[in-house]
Amino acid sequence: MFIIYEELKEKTISTSYLYRGKIINVRQDRVKDARGKDAFREVVEHPGAVAVLAVNESDEAVLVRQHRQPAGEVLLEIPAGKLEPGEEPLACARRELIEETGLKAAAWQEINCFYTSPGFCDEKIYLFLAENLSKGTASTADPEENIREEAVPLSRAGEMIADGRIRDGKTIVALQYAMLLKKYTYG
Amino acid sequence: MFIIYEELKEKTISTSYLYRGKIINVRQDRVKDARGKDAFREVVEHPGAVAVLAVNESDEAVLVRQHRQPAGEVLLEIPAGKLEPGEEPLACARRELIEETGLKAAAWQEINCFYTSPGFCDEKIYLFLAENLSKGTASTADPEENIREEAVPLSRAGEMIADGRIRDGKTIVALQYAMLLKKYTYG
Repeated sequence: MFIIYEELKEKTISTSYLYRGKIINVRQDRVKDARGKDAFREVVEHPGAVAVLAVNESDEAVLVRQHRQPAGEVLLEIPAGKLEPGEEPLACARRELIEETGLKAAAWQEINCFYTSPGFCDEKIYLFLAENLSKGTASTADPEENIREEAVPLSRAGEMIADGRIRDGKTIVALQYAMLLKKYTYG
Repeated sequence: MFIIYEELKEKTISTSYLYRGKIINVRQDRVKDARGKDAFREVVEHPGAVAVLAVNESDEAVLVRQHRQPAGEVLLEIPAGKLEPGEEPLACARRELIEETGLKAAAWQEINCFYTSPGFCDEKIYLFLAENLSKGTASTADPEENIREEAVPLSRAGEMIADGRIRDGKTIVALQYAMLLKKYTYG
């Protein structure tokens, strides 16, 4: 099913690390394209993440509001978090959902997996749909996280994306998917 | 319309740069939350980007296929590119569309603006809808870019996202938006 586009491929000639951080690393790759032309590519390495579209029986998505230092503001997002080394995406998704919302889900389904910004970063997000929600034990919440849960009706998701109240990429991917699945429109 | 969530906000106490690169910088911010708790946040600074959902009169989106070194593979994406210093997003969108596809558009509309991965990076993408397409002059193509144009019918976009042939976040945001707008489903 996947065609290999040989004429578009680039070969890595050498790699050197420019920065090693807590969450990300930065490396510079020297590459050669199919025409023999050399170039340097700056690559941010990220461990990858999961995100959870949790939908309750009233067709509301359970979102969380939290401060995001890179954005310099409080954003409304679906529950999400970085993969621990060796962690399975689904196990990570279950962990993040309960840590951030206190919810468990009886029905899980992988929606898709996508790069957040493949021009400079290798981060991949595994996106899951979680349904048949119930309250888990409160003690599993991560005390490090200062977040607030908020249920958003899918009937209002389109207007909240359009007016910028929701402005996180993975959350837009998830909510538009839910709108398509459950026949809501941008309105 | 935008409520300020004081109890969720964090204050920046100090900042230091850990890496300054060609496209991105990395800094570490020391922050204090509303409960007085200190933490360090690693932040990747990116200049921001634009992306263009170009839809022709046959309801096809014009995508481009190119090697992405961070992904280590050839990806199918909507035309996009980084903002130059001081560049207006719409001017950048016009420039990227013609550089990557040779196309001009008579009708432009901003769809939305979103963070690609606000947990660690400040990159924002301004997403535009471009319609009434026509061929521009070929000489404006950027010779640095080894890319291949490909028209994807909106009727097939859902299946291509679902099976992973399209696995770039901004492209999924754009195509799902077009599907919702023009009443295509995941099928």
